[in-house]
Amino acid sequence: MRHYKHNTLAKLAAPALAVALTGSASAATSAKLIHDAEQNLLQEQFGEKWAKQDGELQKRLDALYKKHGKRPNIVHIMWDDNSFGEVGIKAFNKIRGFDTPVLNKMGDEGITFTRMYTEPSCTPTRAAALTGRLAVRSGMYTVAFPPEGSGLPGEEVTIAEVLSAAGYNTAFFAKAHQGDIEESYMHNQGFDEAQFSLYNQFPPIFWHADGEAGMMTNGYTPEMTEKNYLVDSTWRPYGYIMDIEGKKGGKARETLPPTLDATLENYRKLIDMHQEKAVDFIKRKAKDKNPFYLAYWPNVYDLNRRGQEITTSNSSPFAQNIERLDRHIGEILAELEKQGIAENTLVIAMADNGPMTEVVGAMYQNVFNGGKGDYREGGIRVAAFAQWKGVIEPGTVVGDIFAVHDLYTTFARLGNAMEHIPTDRIIDGIDQTAVFLEGDGQSRRDYYHVYTGPVHAASIKQQYKRVWIGGRPGLVKNDFYNLYQDPREMRGMMAQMLWAWGPFDMVKKRHDAMNKKYPFTPTRHGVPFTGIENLRPESKVYQETVRKTMNTGK
Amino acid sequence: MRHYKHNTLAKLAAPALAVALTGSASAATSAKLIHDAEQNLLQEQFGEKWAKQDGELQKRLDALYKKHGKRPNIVHIMWDDNSFGEVGIKAFNKIRGFDTPVLNKMGDEGITFTRMYTEPSCTPTRAAALTGRLAVRSGMYTVAFPPEGSGLPGEEVTIAEVLSAAGYNTAFFAKAHQGDIEESYMHNQGFDEAQFSLYNQFPPIFWHADGEAGMMTNGYTPEMTEKNYLVDSTWRPYGYIMDIEGKKGGKARETLPPTLDATLENYRKLIDMHQEKAVDFIKRKAKDKNPFYLAYWPNVYDLNRRGQEITTSNSSPFAQNIERLDRHIGEILAELEKQGIAENTLVIAMADNGPMTEVVGAMYQNVFNGGKGDYREGGIRVAAFAQWKGVIEPGTVVGDIFAVHDLYTTFARLGNAMEHIPTDRIIDGIDQTAVFLEGDGQSRRDYYHVYTGPVHAASIKQQYKRVWIGGRPGLVKNDFYNLYQDPREMRGMMAQMLWAWGPFDMVKKRHDAMNKKYPFTPTRHGVPFTGIENLRPESKVYQETVRKTMNTGK
Repeated sequence: MRHYKHNTLAKLAAPALAVALTGSASAATSAKLIHDAEQNLLQEQFGEKWAKQDGELQKRLDALYKKHGKRPNIVHIMWDDNSFGEVGIKAFNKIRGFDTPVLNKMGDEGITFTRMYTEPSCTPTRAAALTGRLAVRSGMYTVAFPPEGSGLPGEEVTIAEVLSAAGYNTAFFAKAHQGDIEESYMHNQGFDEAQFSLYNQFPPIFWHADGEAGMMTNGYTPEMTEKNYLVDSTWRPYGYIMDIEGKKGGKARETLPPTLDATLENYRKLIDMHQEKAVDFIKRKAKDKNPFYLAYWPNVYDLNRRGQEITTSNSSPFAQNIERLDRHIGEILAELEKQGIAENTLVIAMADNGPMTEVVGAMYQNVFNGGKGDYREGGIRVAAFAQWKGVIEPGTVVGDIFAVHDLYTTFARLGNAMEHIPTDRIIDGIDQTAVFLEGDGQSRRDYYHVYTGPVHAASIKQQYKRVWIGGRPGLVKNDFYNLYQDPREMRGMMAQMLWAWGPFDMVKKRHDAMNKKYPFTPTRHGVPFTGIENLRPESKVYQETVRKTMNTGK
Repeated sequence: MRHYKHNTLAKLAAPALAVALTGSASAATSAKLIHDAEQNLLQEQFGEKWAKQDGELQKRLDALYKKHGKRPNIVHIMWDDNSFGEVGIKAFNKIRGFDTPVLNKMGDEGITFTRMYTEPSCTPTRAAALTGRLAVRSGMYTVAFPPEGSGLPGEEVTIAEVLSAAGYNTAFFAKAHQGDIEESYMHNQGFDEAQFSLYNQFPPIFWHADGEAGMMTNGYTPEMTEKNYLVDSTWRPYGYIMDIEGKKGGKARETLPPTLDATLENYRKLIDMHQEKAVDFIKRKAKDKNPFYLAYWPNVYDLNRRGQEITTSNSSPFAQNIERLDRHIGEILAELEKQGIAENTLVIAMADNGPMTEVVGAMYQNVFNGGKGDYREGGIRVAAFAQWKGVIEPGTVVGDIFAVHDLYTTFARLGNAMEHIPTDRIIDGIDQTAVFLEGDGQSRRDYYHVYTGPVHAASIKQQYKRVWIGGRPGLVKNDFYNLYQDPREMRGMMAQMLWAWGPFDMVKKRHDAMNKKYPFTPTRHGVPFTGIENLRPESKVYQETVRKTMNTGK
């Protein structure tokens, strides 16, 4: 915008909203996609420049194709709840008392993102990465816990489906958290093979009394049930299923049941098992004639001290877990090296949202305020790194706005699979290939809409942020921030930013108009655990409880 | 401590306090110095190991001496009020919207300190650096403003005196803030040559009405005086002297008087003039047969927007000023390269304390809470970097506790001038040569006593911190922190750290016992501006006002 001529801006003013609602007809690679209103305005302003740049980028991608004989492999590693700063920057490791040498090296040799925005919690961010759409569009805006009975709708077109259609080998390992209904299973959502957790890590960690003690929660374990009065045996969802595996089009099987006597042990085995499977997948597909896409979203956390030797200065299981994650990522990168495919593989390593600040003494608001579930920067601005040897300029620090949704479209572009992205719905993800190939200042996004659950909580435009909810009684919608001057959002600057009131109103109106044209998909409900071959008796009780609740309210 | 055997600890228990109060008699280089009690306990535990290490270090220093034909030059650059993190780490530059490439490179190629402790404000930190002693010991514990009438006592032995005695060329440029009495002038405190500011930057920046507008202060400028009633013409210290220069043993001269019509202009000229003099000193002494010690403590800040072109994304004069500082440090480093002496020069670049958080929209609590004047980490844990090409391992990140006081003793060691450090008083500074030569984990300090003004506010031991003042009514002295788990000191953990109550009490008792044995020097008062040859009439009025107030209270 800064370099945009005034007379051109004047010409733009009239047709701008129309353009925003229809999408641009320029010849850029992503021209056919339906983007959100704000992006269409940018396309109108920069379309010509971007189309030209796209031509140059394509030449570089073609040269890579020629060199390696296939399109690039893509590895997307994403873990839970991590505060920006404390991984990937050695000085911050020292402040927090633990070490992440692998991620630090990844930052030194690849890209460190400083404005990677996600949704504020795990289910929405994962849905966003899978679909390239704001989670609110697919109904995946809440974090579900067992018992659930909902999940990612089958008609969503995941990145696995997009890349599969273009010939990629695809696999998913570890935490999906995309629901417990059959259509939501990862092997029913485009992945050739998958082993994955249906929910979050809470149940296995806290099944044991000592796990509860560590967190000062209470009453989840069987021993702690109320025994003096009548006790509803279906209230605690003991029949929940932690993890299943399946192959595209096939039935699922539960892997390691979190039974009462082996819940924590099995959870720990799962962490290692997912890691091994991820490494094994790379090994198996490295020499394949087709490239691969691997989504490895490890469970990572085990906040139960039982049997864990704590050796970090930070002296919390959390820090210990992060160090293990770092080693595990190191194994992935080492395998790529060993197979000789590091130069033809883009690796993304990132958190899915900010820290769960309720885990006191461990997860922490280092640089931004707010944590998981929060529309403040601390909830949505995450640690994120990229490696692509020989392609990404080492030590690149990207200050651009980037969104997890953009990975969808960018992966599709890199995989020459843009034609498989649906064009009947809004795709929030922007093709950000230029950022990977040309570095800082190349983002094609200058905005981000923050939803918490189904609520549009804030909008970010350039260095400014306006909060749509909360604020002072009597003068609502009044929180304006300059994120360079006040990255922790400590001091609303409505008075200084009254100029931005109208422009932000326009941003929201454009967005609302697009949402009206392309309505959100309601949350998909269903009976959990269908399509699983080896269902346990207690899981059938669980299933029946959910079915009855949904159908009769009983 | 972690590797310390239990039986040895038991043996230590009885004589520990005695040792603490007398100092160790070991053969270590710094054995003759009187250190604080806590250090004497460490000396008792590690004296033998350190003595052995000192021998190895000396061999390396001797080899350097042989290579360069003289002892190392030392450049100590120190500026005001800067929040940890936002300089020296590129990812944080992006977050704050300004760039410090020189300091980032210094971190990449030298040492980044993550626990460099200072005193919480400028006068005390500068006194601490000059004397190697807690500022409270020299009476320099408050920040003075004109009119003042006090300053650094002549009997303090500064690092300039120590290194001068060992043959170093010494110079001081820019902000001293060590008082306005003759004995406190830098050229009377051991520096061969000096040009320096007596006070802080407040008066020249805010003399103009537009400077006041920027900060929303009011009433300092002449136009804003109360005109409807009788007006005391001595109330505003218009006769204050911003900057003087002098040579060792000679008289001083005021340089650029901050007269009403040229205060801001002259202040800006001073910033450039000090910078030029610092570079020129390096140029003049580079080839001298003796090494040099340069204290360059630039004024840096100019928060008055008048005539400043703002080009940083952060859009504040503060950010603009920091970028200029970075360029200025770049010129210093370039001159060392140009003169071919970078490999024989230790450069320290650091802030003197945390941000003045009252400067809203500019100075900021990025990583730690608290700012200037505060005993919390944000007040005392500063950005700090070291460069010594060929000696310091590139990319070293030091998580050790280090204190600004330690530079005094370390510089003396490097300059082979330990014998000139006085042995009739407590020297808080520890010889930290090992940190520069051998890197992280080599600090000989595991504690720090935090004073705010004359008040002992907190003590830090290892990763723990106990606050001695404030806290909840009815249960005072109750704030305990684990700084790895809670670097922002958000959540006092008294319950979890009841074990540390007694040990911290012991730390304080030992410290208090030493303070009783070696009492603090009272703040030195006197008539300001004596020894200045070209005193202006209005400065004589100022001088007389102070003299009368001190002598008669009138």
